[in-house]
Amino acid sequence: MRRSPYHSLFFVVAVLAATGVVTAQDLGTARRGLMPVPASVEWKVGRLSIDRTFTVALSGKTDERLRNYVFRVMRRLEGRTVLELSRGTLTEPANAALLIETASTGNAIPKLGDDESYKLEISDKQAKLTASTTVGAMRGLETVLQLLAGDKAGFYLPAVSINDKPRFPWRGLMIDSARHFQPMDVLKRNLDAMAAVKLNVLHWHLTEDQGFRVESKKLPELHQMGSDGNFYSQTEIREVIGYAADRGIRVMPEFDMPGHATAWVVSHPEIASAPGPYKIERRPGIFDPTLDPTNEKTYKLLEVFFKEMSSLFPDAYMHIGGDENEGKQWDANASIQAFMKQKGIKSNHELQTYFNTRILVFLKKNGKTMMGWDEIFQPSLPKEVVIHSWRGQKALAEAAKQGFAGVLSSGYYIDLMFPAREHYVVDPLPADTPLNAEEQKRVLGGEATMWSEWVSPDTIDSRIWPRTAAIAERLWSERNVNDVDDMYRRLGLVSIQLEELGLTHRKNRTMLLRRLVQGEDISGLQTLISLVEPVKQYRRYQQRPQTMLSPLTGLVDAAQADADGVLRFNQAVKDALDKNSSTRNLNEVRTLLANWREAARSLQPVMENSPSLFEAKQLANDLEILSAIGMEALSFIEAKSVPPNGWREEKLKNLTEIAKPKAALEFRVVESVEKLVEAAGGN
Amino acid sequence: MRRSPYHSLFFVVAVLAATGVVTAQDLGTARRGLMPVPASVEWKVGRLSIDRTFTVALSGKTDERLRNYVFRVMRRLEGRTVLELSRGTLTEPANAALLIETASTGNAIPKLGDDESYKLEISDKQAKLTASTTVGAMRGLETVLQLLAGDKAGFYLPAVSINDKPRFPWRGLMIDSARHFQPMDVLKRNLDAMAAVKLNVLHWHLTEDQGFRVESKKLPELHQMGSDGNFYSQTEIREVIGYAADRGIRVMPEFDMPGHATAWVVSHPEIASAPGPYKIERRPGIFDPTLDPTNEKTYKLLEVFFKEMSSLFPDAYMHIGGDENEGKQWDANASIQAFMKQKGIKSNHELQTYFNTRILVFLKKNGKTMMGWDEIFQPSLPKEVVIHSWRGQKALAEAAKQGFAGVLSSGYYIDLMFPAREHYVVDPLPADTPLNAEEQKRVLGGEATMWSEWVSPDTIDSRIWPRTAAIAERLWSERNVNDVDDMYRRLGLVSIQLEELGLTHRKNRTMLLRRLVQGEDISGLQTLISLVEPVKQYRRYQQRPQTMLSPLTGLVDAAQADADGVLRFNQAVKDALDKNSSTRNLNEVRTLLANWREAARSLQPVMENSPSLFEAKQLANDLEILSAIGMEALSFIEAKSVPPNGWREEKLKNLTEIAKPKAALEFRVVESVEKLVEAAGGN
Repeated sequence: MRRSPYHSLFFVVAVLAATGVVTAQDLGTARRGLMPVPASVEWKVGRLSIDRTFTVALSGKTDERLRNYVFRVMRRLEGRTVLELSRGTLTEPANAALLIETASTGNAIPKLGDDESYKLEISDKQAKLTASTTVGAMRGLETVLQLLAGDKAGFYLPAVSINDKPRFPWRGLMIDSARHFQPMDVLKRNLDAMAAVKLNVLHWHLTEDQGFRVESKKLPELHQMGSDGNFYSQTEIREVIGYAADRGIRVMPEFDMPGHATAWVVSHPEIASAPGPYKIERRPGIFDPTLDPTNEKTYKLLEVFFKEMSSLFPDAYMHIGGDENEGKQWDANASIQAFMKQKGIKSNHELQTYFNTRILVFLKKNGKTMMGWDEIFQPSLPKEVVIHSWRGQKALAEAAKQGFAGVLSSGYYIDLMFPAREHYVVDPLPADTPLNAEEQKRVLGGEATMWSEWVSPDTIDSRIWPRTAAIAERLWSERNVNDVDDMYRRLGLVSIQLEELGLTHRKNRTMLLRRLVQGEDISGLQTLISLVEPVKQYRRYQQRPQTMLSPLTGLVDAAQADADGVLRFNQAVKDALDKNSSTRNLNEVRTLLANWREAARSLQPVMENSPSLFEAKQLANDLEILSAIGMEALSFIEAKSVPPNGWREEKLKNLTEIAKPKAALEFRVVESVEKLVEAAGGN
Repeated sequence: MRRSPYHSLFFVVAVLAATGVVTAQDLGTARRGLMPVPASVEWKVGRLSIDRTFTVALSGKTDERLRNYVFRVMRRLEGRTVLELSRGTLTEPANAALLIETASTGNAIPKLGDDESYKLEISDKQAKLTASTTVGAMRGLETVLQLLAGDKAGFYLPAVSINDKPRFPWRGLMIDSARHFQPMDVLKRNLDAMAAVKLNVLHWHLTEDQGFRVESKKLPELHQMGSDGNFYSQTEIREVIGYAADRGIRVMPEFDMPGHATAWVVSHPEIASAPGPYKIERRPGIFDPTLDPTNEKTYKLLEVFFKEMSSLFPDAYMHIGGDENEGKQWDANASIQAFMKQKGIKSNHELQTYFNTRILVFLKKNGKTMMGWDEIFQPSLPKEVVIHSWRGQKALAEAAKQGFAGVLSSGYYIDLMFPAREHYVVDPLPADTPLNAEEQKRVLGGEATMWSEWVSPDTIDSRIWPRTAAIAERLWSERNVNDVDDMYRRLGLVSIQLEELGLTHRKNRTMLLRRLVQGEDISGLQTLISLVEPVKQYRRYQQRPQTMLSPLTGLVDAAQADADGVLRFNQAVKDALDKNSSTRNLNEVRTLLANWREAARSLQPVMENSPSLFEAKQLANDLEILSAIGMEALSFIEAKSVPPNGWREEKLKNLTEIAKPKAALEFRVVESVEKLVEAAGGN
């Protein structure tokens, strides 16, 4: 819970601009990539050249983890600079281009509240990174990589003084490995990416209606019957934990109960609240199978399970889910109803609390702190339980007021395909928080949640990245680091750097498009998907019913939440219609509209003969109509002539049709075309 | 050694065209992707629709390997069609869309000479695949996937009767995991790709001056001291062998000796021919360290090693390298010289044969057949030794004449960056072979060789694929399947299908370019690398000295052997200058030249500020000059005016400069621009 005195970048910029020490342009280049923005940055004059003589020295208390981290950072530097650098680290600090001083190694397995702060001083002669712990040094090394710049004179690090620490101690990414199993390499590359943007918790969602993904040696029938063979062996689990620890990242498992439990009761129908038998669920949604909280067999099994998992997972926190239990099986079960009556339990929520209280005993016995979704919240629970909020800041604040620590995920549901900006503005502790200082400390941070109904190993990176970097910044940087345009600018740079780590979020997009057309020429399709986005929220399934076994290789799977042609078109229209501008320029809009027409026309015959694209045929037609409407509007605007009666209404009606989603995709430029129509006038 | 009666596709096409049963267009769609071309194809009228009801039944003798193969084929079909298909196989043949009948399972671990033949009959009602063995069925399933087509009416398989078997029984890809270590996923995805084009041998180059990559439990110091920690554990080796066997692919290891042995003698300097000490070699090239063939310790160690490796690798063949031993250490070693004198050994070649004869004993004792590069050839060796020829068909034929079986790799050195067409025309048994029928049988096939001096896990796929598919066709299909244009057309399709298997040959190219410019806009760079190719042969190192530890992220690493803009420009110039054409059209050439200019101009400022691209700055300037020269020539041609005196000479001189490689890249369009200059006339 470290809240630093406010010292924002913007403040620094203002001061520097006033003193004129650093020109705006220098500053632009130098700070181009910092994401998350550090707590304090003071730009200086000068630069530290990076060439093949670049070396690193370690001093103070150091460990294997740090040496390996430095090794990997050097390889990434090599990849970017195409220079062969030293493979070892020096012991002579004075000779090193980068000197890293760590006072202690810190915890070998990261813990909540570990000191992640660091200082970075870069001058013409040396970069000096100082941290209390190995993990702090890791965070600083990522900043060093983001500072790398190049110009006519070569590569360099700009002179700077950075004093950085996180705003929140819990900065997570939840990966749902249950609905769609994600192989080891997916987890590893995403852990690398998390470290690159200074996230520190992998919340690993391991059991669901659709799959039981963790090997249990004590109860092997659980994973054997509940996973189609797609589970993580305990060796693999340990490998992930070790890989994460080497990057300063905690791994907290989630075993969702008492609902979301179908995969549990495939092998153990006797602990369900209805007789069964059960099969692994293939559909998305909320399902009835629920553990029976009145059956001692349930607790007997869970006691064994939690004991085993507690020794497998070293983290102090264990997530028991607890969400979306609709209690249908409970309502329908006479014996459960009798139990409730007998014990004076008045509601399903109370029954769930009874269940949680029983589970809590197992967790405590094994030294674990319980965490669960909003639904587990109940003032009578012991205060060490952590609330994970999908409901929002209000629910979180209410829990905090009652003494519970909490983590926010409402607003960070990256599976719902909202653009980065919408996540970016969600603050776990907004400026108007009703909490006092003591209560505010209970808000530990947040987690982006990658629910995996509609992601495959080929597409998951593109759903997580680069948007999660915006959430990472929200959780690390000060509240008033909130310039959306600047966030997008830096997000674009971070996105490319993430590719170094093997992330496929950029490169698999064109791969999917080539597969859809079974050809090299995807230019038309690229234009189209640069203007459409997948439908938001849970509308994809309504539009396009699929199961967990369906291929995720459609056009919607290649599309992304922040369609990259949208920003440009909307800006062009804004500029063109800006009444205050002396240089109203319609040319950029015209050029873009012409591109759309060309793309649409080239696409139509391709789509006619590509059955995998049949579902999207209407989108190509709509693209041509959008272009035509825009062009017509432009002509009226340019000629300053009034459109004929009814033109405006007809076009707006067309646009309403075009705005409707098709193939689970929707155009994100309709509003700007509407603006053109409105600007053309008429009635 | 199965040579079928000649029945080429071209013959079939001619007959069908004559009878008019199938239109040319239908045929084009239907056979668009078959690569390698089957031994016999008879197209029929009709189509088998593929929709979500598509099912597979297995009958006859079947095994787990085949069921798993079918499962994977179904997932690939799903990926392409975006249809969810059945996960199981049926037992009721009559109901299946695809019926697979296998007479036997064949060898669970593939062997040389396994029956890979299959028949495929597709009608409106059913596709029937018949094979003697599981591996034959695998080959047929890849053909089924290549037959998948789509049109307005949906996906389908065209009606056809295919009777297929390979021309050569040994169709391999050698991967050098020693110079640059390649992780497991690289091997796995390349095995998948090999199976897709019906290759059946992974020749695994595991020891080199630059690395000892196989775990030895008996002599662990070998991999511990010789690999920087980058080696395959025996568990991983078995995993690769199993993965390959599941795809009908043999795995033959190579342990290179007595030369190329630096990594051996890092831990065992006592068996080298000079005292040492030795360090893992980091440079490319041919090095002195050579095992001492006169030292009994050498044989003691190798006996242990070969015994262990023989039980680890089930394949009957074991490759001992034997290449490029220059004998410098032998010449300089008085004790070795004395040994030779004493034994009457007259040359280093004889000494190597002495060494080979001793090794042969170990291999034979463990049931292995020895294979080695040309250098091991010596008429006195027992006839079961297999010669692997990097020298060429003549050397191979000479060995065959003397009774030795052989495999060709000369002409298939894919690391040398020649275009696919150059490999495609190399035939292990050319039409004018001097061998008689008996001797011809000794030519077992060929292997593409991926030497790994300049490939990283990120770039290796782009060096192997898609070109190796052309070599795979040469080794599977009949000799007269040799239409280069048609090969390229099909190669383009296969290339995209290979991406389904996780191959990165296409998608990592743009990733590397984005890293080089640290930005999204790579259009200029894409134009440039579509016109240049990496220098051929061994000139890369001369141009651009690097070591095995250098980053392979430069522009040359993103470039490819068949630059994709070259074909189009050369064709455009050819069309434009075609004197017999009534519609000489200069527009296409002009458009392309204008693109070059635009790309060059946008690139220059980018390159000025991207230190990783400094080495390639001259290429952007050259591109602009190429464009200007081409444009000038066009003007003269169009105006039918004669260029001023000296213009032609000056431009040709410029072009000579431009043709010189820079940054290990060379323009492949200079010749066509020269043609334009010549066509403009003048003197």
